[in-house]
Amino acid sequence: MADTLKGNAVVGQSGGPTGVINASLVGVIEEVRKHADIENLYGAVHAVAGMVKDDFIDLGQIGTDTLETVAASPSSALGSSRDKPDEEYCRKIIEVFKKRNVRYFFYIGGNDSANTAHILNTVADETDYNIRAFHVPKTVDNDLLVTDHCPGFGTAAKFVAQALQGDDLDNRALPGVKIDVIMGRHAGFLTAATALGRQRDDDGPHLVYVPERPVSMDKFLADVEGVYNKLGRCVIAVSEGICDTDHKTWAEKLAENEERDAHGNIQLSGTGALADFLAGQIKTNLKIKRVRADTFGYLQRSYAGLQSQVDVDEARQCGRQAVKFAMEHDSGSVAIQRTGDGDNYAVELVRTELKNVAEKTKSIPDEYINADGNGVTDAFVKYAMPLVGGLPKTEYLGTYPKI
Amino acid sequence: MADTLKGNAVVGQSGGPTGVINASLVGVIEEVRKHADIENLYGAVHAVAGMVKDDFIDLGQIGTDTLETVAASPSSALGSSRDKPDEEYCRKIIEVFKKRNVRYFFYIGGNDSANTAHILNTVADETDYNIRAFHVPKTVDNDLLVTDHCPGFGTAAKFVAQALQGDDLDNRALPGVKIDVIMGRHAGFLTAATALGRQRDDDGPHLVYVPERPVSMDKFLADVEGVYNKLGRCVIAVSEGICDTDHKTWAEKLAENEERDAHGNIQLSGTGALADFLAGQIKTNLKIKRVRADTFGYLQRSYAGLQSQVDVDEARQCGRQAVKFAMEHDSGSVAIQRTGDGDNYAVELVRTELKNVAEKTKSIPDEYINADGNGVTDAFVKYAMPLVGGLPKTEYLGTYPKI
Repeated sequence: MADTLKGNAVVGQSGGPTGVINASLVGVIEEVRKHADIENLYGAVHAVAGMVKDDFIDLGQIGTDTLETVAASPSSALGSSRDKPDEEYCRKIIEVFKKRNVRYFFYIGGNDSANTAHILNTVADETDYNIRAFHVPKTVDNDLLVTDHCPGFGTAAKFVAQALQGDDLDNRALPGVKIDVIMGRHAGFLTAATALGRQRDDDGPHLVYVPERPVSMDKFLADVEGVYNKLGRCVIAVSEGICDTDHKTWAEKLAENEERDAHGNIQLSGTGALADFLAGQIKTNLKIKRVRADTFGYLQRSYAGLQSQVDVDEARQCGRQAVKFAMEHDSGSVAIQRTGDGDNYAVELVRTELKNVAEKTKSIPDEYINADGNGVTDAFVKYAMPLVGGLPKTEYLGTYPKI
Repeated sequence: MADTLKGNAVVGQSGGPTGVINASLVGVIEEVRKHADIENLYGAVHAVAGMVKDDFIDLGQIGTDTLETVAASPSSALGSSRDKPDEEYCRKIIEVFKKRNVRYFFYIGGNDSANTAHILNTVADETDYNIRAFHVPKTVDNDLLVTDHCPGFGTAAKFVAQALQGDDLDNRALPGVKIDVIMGRHAGFLTAATALGRQRDDDGPHLVYVPERPVSMDKFLADVEGVYNKLGRCVIAVSEGICDTDHKTWAEKLAENEERDAHGNIQLSGTGALADFLAGQIKTNLKIKRVRADTFGYLQRSYAGLQSQVDVDEARQCGRQAVKFAMEHDSGSVAIQRTGDGDNYAVELVRTELKNVAEKTKSIPDEYINADGNGVTDAFVKYAMPLVGGLPKTEYLGTYPKI
């Protein structure tokens, strides 16, 4: 338990946007207003990039109607940044914090953001400037440790599940091979979620490839041929981070795009190269004429007007809980614990240390991937289904008995 | 006025699926059930491809609950076909029709489908076999003549408008150049619809390129540079059918994909090549580092769980109206006439001759495109906005006054 600490607060949003990162922001804002120890709440414009140059807006003046619109809007309403601050960068931020008497810091983001909060807290301690640093989890990749799942995943999962429901019906109507490339550099949760909307035995995606299961081109082609020969069509969900048996990603092998971001990652989203490469392999090797490939791209993380209600509610609660924790603790990350499942799905929010989340990633557990490494298990569906907040029922008539 | 005609009916769905072509199918089914002159209603599996080989399901046995699910499902529930029947093909179909005593034919599709209905009607006449052939319009491209707009367009327009709302917020959060390639080979209506969700003066898409306005690479790059220098970012919506000033499409110029469909069209959807080409041009020539490109692909026409209610209702009404017209006329296509606008938006359904719709396409009227050929006008927004059935309100805080 920490003593009472009076001062101002900063909140920021970092990394790739999601459909509910703004709900977490609103959760922070509305909870801060309940605590007299926090006088002003400053929104960091473009995350650490704004913090280091003293670039803030006043979040105390925003009306509740506007806040509700913010909570329903995708992307990061304060702006984001891909900067990865080192200690020197963080020392500059702490100077800004001192000038503004910022004593509370809430950072909504992935594992890099947890690390930033951790460094900021450490640097502040070193200069005997007391701050409370809290991380609020978000990522469509669902790859943070400790937490059962990440706010942002459920909404992205809903988007891709409904996309595949539609795409599978499209593929029934005009049969062929369809490849859909899904976000997820290292973790395949979102790619796996494409399977959530399946209703009929022969519904697609028929093959699901995640980064956790390297696959050779020969195996990939044999899988596709097997499904195509059986059903006369094949819908495939492939993670952008899919890799060959030598663990090198196919996207890297393409080497068509050498751009790397500040974190040393190669660009995978925002290009159709991988999808087109895979389509070309199938056309050339399997002699299947109608092969199409879509790369879902940024629609997965920032589509307006489509949220999982469960995800929105949890994201907002995580923001609120971070503020509550900050009243009593020095630092931490909010984690979701699942306390009930199925119809009794329920969660509790707990605090974990920043270092437990910082710079680490979670992969899909083995029991969520089938033995053949090309599909998901019922255990995954049971895990992920409550997070999407319901999926539409669909119907296809073309397979009804002939008259 | 035609005499009473007793017999069976066939309904089929042709060409690219849409989000509401199944609503039109359900409209046909439910209206047929009211007319004793039609005994059985057969659903053609995979359109003309099923008709020519006597491949039908019985639509008389499907319950109302299932029909409601069909009406809410994207893609063509009976299956579709890209076959383009000639007279010989149609003579074979008429033989099948004679065998089954099919006297009513309802074909939901684009201008090719109207042409198929026209040929079938003509071929039947030549053999003194009386049929009633009716076309129900559908296309996400919105490019049919006579009708004010096409069922299917409103839902696809809603999808892309919401996509660009989210994508623009994403681009605000992590600024750079973003290119979105939109369906529409010859008509730019759907690409234009990406602008419908703009709320703030500097909301994207900042540039909109439609096939109706050829643009040179120099002009395109100058446009992008102008927006980027002003706003520090730029969101661009480009039709897949965008062409150079020599009227050759840029996709053709890429010539990376020589596959053509049965109608002689080059494949534009289902590949990210055009988007990546444009991104490369911007990176190379404008030296802008963060350039991303998404090709929306089949999500635009077959996304589950997202429909424009206006579009669904009109699509269903068009299906019903085709059956009503068939009770009194020999042939025709259902067309939508707008009778009120804005808050008083209203339509009436009228009959037009098949030949008025067959094999013809409509382009965006000049008054819907800005003088510079890189954006849409208020007149377009006034035309298209009622068709999407509402768009979400969004909020971005990063541009609020600094404190």
